[in-house]
Amino acid sequence: MGHTNAYFADWETLDQEKYLILDYYFESFIDPFEAAAHLCQEQSTAQWKRVDVDEDLRPQFGSKVIDLQIEREPTTPSLPYQIENWNKLWGVRVKIAYPLANFGPRIPNMLTAACGEGAYYSPGIYAIKLHDIIFPYGYLEQFEGPKFGIEGLRKWTEVYNRPLFLGVIKPNIGLAPEPFGALAYQSWLGGLDIAKDDEMLCDTEWSPFAERTRVLGALREKAQQETGKRCVYLANITDEVDKLLELHDIGVKNGADMLMVNAMCIGLSAVRMVRKHTEVPLVAHFDFIAPMTKAPFYGIHSRVITKLQRLSGCDMIIFAGLGARMKTPKNEVFTNIAECINPMGPIKTALPVPAGSQWAGSLGPLHKMMKSTDFAIVPGRAVFGHPAGPKAGAMSLHQGWESVEKGVELSEYAKDHKELAQAIVQFNS
Amino acid sequence: MGHTNAYFADWETLDQEKYLILDYYFESFIDPFEAAAHLCQEQSTAQWKRVDVDEDLRPQFGSKVIDLQIEREPTTPSLPYQIENWNKLWGVRVKIAYPLANFGPRIPNMLTAACGEGAYYSPGIYAIKLHDIIFPYGYLEQFEGPKFGIEGLRKWTEVYNRPLFLGVIKPNIGLAPEPFGALAYQSWLGGLDIAKDDEMLCDTEWSPFAERTRVLGALREKAQQETGKRCVYLANITDEVDKLLELHDIGVKNGADMLMVNAMCIGLSAVRMVRKHTEVPLVAHFDFIAPMTKAPFYGIHSRVITKLQRLSGCDMIIFAGLGARMKTPKNEVFTNIAECINPMGPIKTALPVPAGSQWAGSLGPLHKMMKSTDFAIVPGRAVFGHPAGPKAGAMSLHQGWESVEKGVELSEYAKDHKELAQAIVQFNS
Repeated sequence: MGHTNAYFADWETLDQEKYLILDYYFESFIDPFEAAAHLCQEQSTAQWKRVDVDEDLRPQFGSKVIDLQIEREPTTPSLPYQIENWNKLWGVRVKIAYPLANFGPRIPNMLTAACGEGAYYSPGIYAIKLHDIIFPYGYLEQFEGPKFGIEGLRKWTEVYNRPLFLGVIKPNIGLAPEPFGALAYQSWLGGLDIAKDDEMLCDTEWSPFAERTRVLGALREKAQQETGKRCVYLANITDEVDKLLELHDIGVKNGADMLMVNAMCIGLSAVRMVRKHTEVPLVAHFDFIAPMTKAPFYGIHSRVITKLQRLSGCDMIIFAGLGARMKTPKNEVFTNIAECINPMGPIKTALPVPAGSQWAGSLGPLHKMMKSTDFAIVPGRAVFGHPAGPKAGAMSLHQGWESVEKGVELSEYAKDHKELAQAIVQFNS
Repeated sequence: MGHTNAYFADWETLDQEKYLILDYYFESFIDPFEAAAHLCQEQSTAQWKRVDVDEDLRPQFGSKVIDLQIEREPTTPSLPYQIENWNKLWGVRVKIAYPLANFGPRIPNMLTAACGEGAYYSPGIYAIKLHDIIFPYGYLEQFEGPKFGIEGLRKWTEVYNRPLFLGVIKPNIGLAPEPFGALAYQSWLGGLDIAKDDEMLCDTEWSPFAERTRVLGALREKAQQETGKRCVYLANITDEVDKLLELHDIGVKNGADMLMVNAMCIGLSAVRMVRKHTEVPLVAHFDFIAPMTKAPFYGIHSRVITKLQRLSGCDMIIFAGLGARMKTPKNEVFTNIAECINPMGPIKTALPVPAGSQWAGSLGPLHKMMKSTDFAIVPGRAVFGHPAGPKAGAMSLHQGWESVEKGVELSEYAKDHKELAQAIVQFNS
């Protein structure tokens, strides 16, 4: 092993509060220990001494392998690029302790260390996937995390003891604020908790953000007075980074009482910037994530992105859920749910929203899987494309949940709940 | 095809200034035309009418297939997740016209349309890769693009008629500003054009950004006076988004005359924000890109990321170049070079920096490949790990280029240029 020993350590002997742990799977066609040492070198102290100076910067600044397991011996490389003349391929799981003092509590610099040039261009390593990042308590303390968390969201929405019902107002794009608001208003009358902008909807000429939030803010208020039930409007502020705080202020002033960001599209650090400023709960939508998470042996596990969105301050995280369209293994969905609610030191929980073509019938399976009511569903067409309109669509969600609560089969419960019956005909595919 | 015809159009009949073109490869196990129509629907007008209203929002707001070619008939899916009961698999190349009025000149919202939930979670489509985005002139006019471009960079650095020589100051992390600056100073004395911070180096306790830029700014000035040659210090400002402009101001005031961002780590929109503010050239480093670009049939082609970095305002773009460590096909390297320099309407060029373990001997092959001097190399160890020190390392680069200019073999030229001879022994692997 020679000099590469400097990149190995016993976790028990390290000052554990001074490191985060990076958990990778990688494939190498050189000795796995040598490959792991290269990985540490590339992502930390690439050159660890000056020429002609007797020094070694690795003990303090080098990242260190603390665990290495041969998990697989693949017969073909998981990434086909540019591999020649190899005899044997190792599939390796490795845990690396990374010194926090190299970058501190800065998301972009943490990403550089964990997912930068070093990790993905290390000698002898081809496919590599970052599976997890584990943070020490003292590091987490330096982040704000969600302002509300699940408990705060419950108070904010006044919904206790059941999942939250979100609905994506549809048609999602193309309507002016008035007709768009009329749809949201109907959904609130039917009991929808949170009517939300689609992720594609932003500040456009045909639906200026200021006008849209003014119209929907007023209608939300009206619906609240008429129903006696809390009604929330979740407005999408996704825009250029230097516009986000201004849009936050306009939205909140106009009565949008929850805000959405397409988190990876604006960047996690921009999410954190909004979090520091926000007066209302923040919701993350899942765009620009799949391209890096869906290959099984390459990229970044979606768990990491969920965790980082929570760390950045999202109170509610929408991610790929169950169902054929989402093409996501059940186990991955469950992992992302867990990342929202698992203890994370001083960082509050985030409400998990495993999304995708949902309807009243999605509540039972999710509740069964989670054994908890701490989640939300986010149908679009099942509310706003309901054959009897958005009010009936929202009602069908409540009826769906009632059937779960009462332990009655959905089809049985639908017999004297016509909105649910219509939903079964239309959306149960 | 039925209603899906609404998602097809003849490009010649469209108002071409009102659309950008998204170029995808995808694999489907349903009819490719049906799959392409689903893709358009999911990424634009998911629900295109109100219940009980006679309307159709698709002509104006729907994205439209303008070309579809069956490229391959794969025997196994390129993404192994969750595929059951398929008979035939189509590998499809599709061009889609996307209405710009849906989001306007906003990078995060463009990313949502092109790489959002819709594109990666469309029914019947499994593997999908975004290969290109093509912009109309009028859209490009709404972006700032690089402030300097290649021509401006040449004036800024006073280097004409040869490639630029960057060097990553090493040891890259762990040194205090004084010894770190001493290394840069030596490299400038040897003729290095631009001494740069490593992408891992940021504003830390052991190397505070203000102090580092003060020390290196002063030494840069000193080296400039002593050599009579322009010397540039490229400081890495990568940090949380709400710190970037402050770091820009500190750096520039202290004499850092070029600034680097790990572009995807801070987010493209944050790059654009810095661009609007900057007084000096901006350089992009390639972290947090490979996880989404390296799978051959999934994710996003690196060309798109290069193009968007240029659009966001980077004057110089560092990306994965040639060499075993970079695991990047030559063709992909060349494509990224082209994206920096191809005509792009009113947007200036960016200087391409195809990087990775470079040294004096990297200049010839790159020059041969590009048939141009409009590029830079960015060695680290070949300058700062040169056995005779950073001054000799910088000299070896000049000698390497002289050999190219004079058409003399590197080994021949090294016979009476000892810094080059030492470099050949040390770095020619």
